[in-house]
Amino acid sequence: MGEQLHLNAFLMSTGHHEASWRLPESDPFAGTSLAHFSRLAQTAERGKFDSVFFADSPVLWGSVERRPPGAVEPTVLLAALAAVTERIGLIATASTSYNSPYNLARRFASIDHLSGGRAGWNVVTTAGADAARNFGLDDQPLHRGRYERAAEFLEVASKLWDSWEDDAIVADKEAGIWADARRVRAVEHSGRHFSVWGALDIPRSPQGRPVIVQAGSSEDGKDLAANHAEAVFTAQQTLEEAQAFYSDLKARTAAAGRDPDGIKILPGIVPILGATAEEALRRERELDELIRPEFARDELARTLRLAPGDLPLDRELPADLPDEDEIEGAKSRYTLVVDLARRERLTVRQLIGRLGGGRGHRTVAGTPEQIADTLEAWFRDGAADGFNVMAAALPAGLDEFVDHVVPLLQARGLFREEYAGTTLREHYGLRLPAPLINAAGGLSRVS
Amino acid sequence: MGEQLHLNAFLMSTGHHEASWRLPESDPFAGTSLAHFSRLAQTAERGKFDSVFFADSPVLWGSVERRPPGAVEPTVLLAALAAVTERIGLIATASTSYNSPYNLARRFASIDHLSGGRAGWNVVTTAGADAARNFGLDDQPLHRGRYERAAEFLEVASKLWDSWEDDAIVADKEAGIWADARRVRAVEHSGRHFSVWGALDIPRSPQGRPVIVQAGSSEDGKDLAANHAEAVFTAQQTLEEAQAFYSDLKARTAAAGRDPDGIKILPGIVPILGATAEEALRRERELDELIRPEFARDELARTLRLAPGDLPLDRELPADLPDEDEIEGAKSRYTLVVDLARRERLTVRQLIGRLGGGRGHRTVAGTPEQIADTLEAWFRDGAADGFNVMAAALPAGLDEFVDHVVPLLQARGLFREEYAGTTLREHYGLRLPAPLINAAGGLSRVS
Repeated sequence: MGEQLHLNAFLMSTGHHEASWRLPESDPFAGTSLAHFSRLAQTAERGKFDSVFFADSPVLWGSVERRPPGAVEPTVLLAALAAVTERIGLIATASTSYNSPYNLARRFASIDHLSGGRAGWNVVTTAGADAARNFGLDDQPLHRGRYERAAEFLEVASKLWDSWEDDAIVADKEAGIWADARRVRAVEHSGRHFSVWGALDIPRSPQGRPVIVQAGSSEDGKDLAANHAEAVFTAQQTLEEAQAFYSDLKARTAAAGRDPDGIKILPGIVPILGATAEEALRRERELDELIRPEFARDELARTLRLAPGDLPLDRELPADLPDEDEIEGAKSRYTLVVDLARRERLTVRQLIGRLGGGRGHRTVAGTPEQIADTLEAWFRDGAADGFNVMAAALPAGLDEFVDHVVPLLQARGLFREEYAGTTLREHYGLRLPAPLINAAGGLSRVS
Repeated sequence: MGEQLHLNAFLMSTGHHEASWRLPESDPFAGTSLAHFSRLAQTAERGKFDSVFFADSPVLWGSVERRPPGAVEPTVLLAALAAVTERIGLIATASTSYNSPYNLARRFASIDHLSGGRAGWNVVTTAGADAARNFGLDDQPLHRGRYERAAEFLEVASKLWDSWEDDAIVADKEAGIWADARRVRAVEHSGRHFSVWGALDIPRSPQGRPVIVQAGSSEDGKDLAANHAEAVFTAQQTLEEAQAFYSDLKARTAAAGRDPDGIKILPGIVPILGATAEEALRRERELDELIRPEFARDELARTLRLAPGDLPLDRELPADLPDEDEIEGAKSRYTLVVDLARRERLTVRQLIGRLGGGRGHRTVAGTPEQIADTLEAWFRDGAADGFNVMAAALPAGLDEFVDHVVPLLQARGLFREEYAGTTLREHYGLRLPAPLINAAGGLSRVS
């Protein structure tokens, strides 16, 4: 059996298509429903997915008129899903700019304990002034500063996760010694962004640390990924772009002194399935026609730092847009949107349609065979280690993928028929991280 | 049917007695086990308890040699328990000193959504320099400053919970309008401790806000409770003390302009059951004999701001201890311990035995009838609206209480036979809080 691909189910309320909530079968309250997300996670587990995943930003995002929020706060959602699933990995996004390392490290360690070693953390730095203003800042920290803080945050969190040795708990009931204090060490970190003295308050979790995921594709984002990430979710529209991103990131990972196989690259795909290609295209068109372009244009204008009035619906983008270097927000998303519009000479209305399905991720409408073919091609041609599956409409889009695409991938030997391991890191075929505990001076004994 | 009492199950790993993990039947890894806590929550729900509750401090507490941690991080634990229970309330402790209002408000709103309206938040200010050093501080903020911050934190959190009107979601699929933007308002809070601009990122939750719980008994703590709390967990050793605390706090609540029935006062009780009084006393003694006094003395010394060497095991406490006014940490716990030792002229060894069972909460060893009698007496005599049940050993201590004490309380008409409502606030017989949304100038529209 050759190498197999990995599948992550990126979940959000009624689906990734911005108009999906308007479908007759969609539950407009799905984003706050445990029953909804339990069903989705159980479906993904039935399909032997490596993981489910939730995006997050601590801010009311976009227009409440336009679409429902994606989900409740995802770390608590992961914990709830740990209780209703057995094997599937559980990945939540959390911000390094608006959290404390001690709080977040213990939440992820806790989820890893509760789930028996299935936790993953998508590390984001959180773009945007609106989020900053929820945390006492007037504007977002500069892009470079956010990434410096993220790197130090990961260093502190890793020290905390490693502050208990694996065998610290001796549980000697006879002698009355629960843990060996020599095997639990205070972190004693004093850096530019953080000062953290103590050890974590709970023992080392089954995976040691959660799986580290990264999703930004800016230069700073790729460097963070090369140094720390074990999985990368990325938006790539064409095979050539995806191949270039893949080989670039694997090379950066090797240059950072890591095994390139230790980072799994999963481009997003928005599958829209039909029994025939025509039916799939019709379903895509019907969804796109439910988009209200004036709402979508507001968001596009925010991404491009323009006023909505600068974007007449039936014209191309203005010629004089800033370079990515001038953008302090979500750099890679900015470039993706501008490149897509320029490359295909799209009008604003057409661009909105292309973005409405998966917010810049690649939409593929077709039969199950066609979807499986394109996944296989990207996997075999050095563009992907697997895919971040972003169903346009939920729950139906995930049901269809699990029932019709997964069996094809399994029949081709490209995807597991059953879970081999019990932890997320085992599903992704990753090694357990070596503890920092023996690094000279990194940790010292708790007195 | 007259007024009924309320029961909260205060849960921690192998139980509240510090030596409980040494019992042959105890699982020393219980504190990180979802199966363990699921079973406990389901047992409490079978017993029709109002709620389960977890304490918390973001610090490695005490000695790892002496006993296991109480639980994983409790907000994620609550979410997991929401998935395995149907009706019981779910209360977690979280610190106002070491969290951001935006993050914590959305986590509790999320748990309230996932649980269908069963969330409660025990508001603490977190004493101790060790915790402070996990968050970049050299020492804990002063007691008064912590409580000022807590009051402002609650104000900001309440504004966030109220930032969506109950009927903001219109879900008009035909028109493509998900929510009415006029009914979602930015908080625009700018205060001494916090500046928060935005609205919450998720709709108003089933209870509007989580039930607010408070557990400190210092002057500042009682004032915070009188102004904000809907339930109070408190440690009271004697009926007279409990009556004085009860009438004082009800009067303060009335003086704060609130209905005294809107705050439920639940003293802690550590029940140790036996088929006979002798058996119960024997079980208590067997547990106490498992305490390692040198470990317990270390913690007592920390509470009293002394060195362990200042506390010979077979002498009474030193005569010259500081007044509560001089204590910046956990003031009310300090006073409780000193008063208990002085009143009963206990040696350090005896004091350790008394504290080992429930860390200052009242231990009652007896038959189910005797336990029910003392609960009834405290309830009828103006000392309690209910009880915070702290089983000495878990899971057995909760099983025994549910199987043997609860039926007696039900037979006496003192406790519900079935849940009447679905939310925690309904279980406690509390009114939904009036939203701040109409308060002049409190909130303004999200543009």
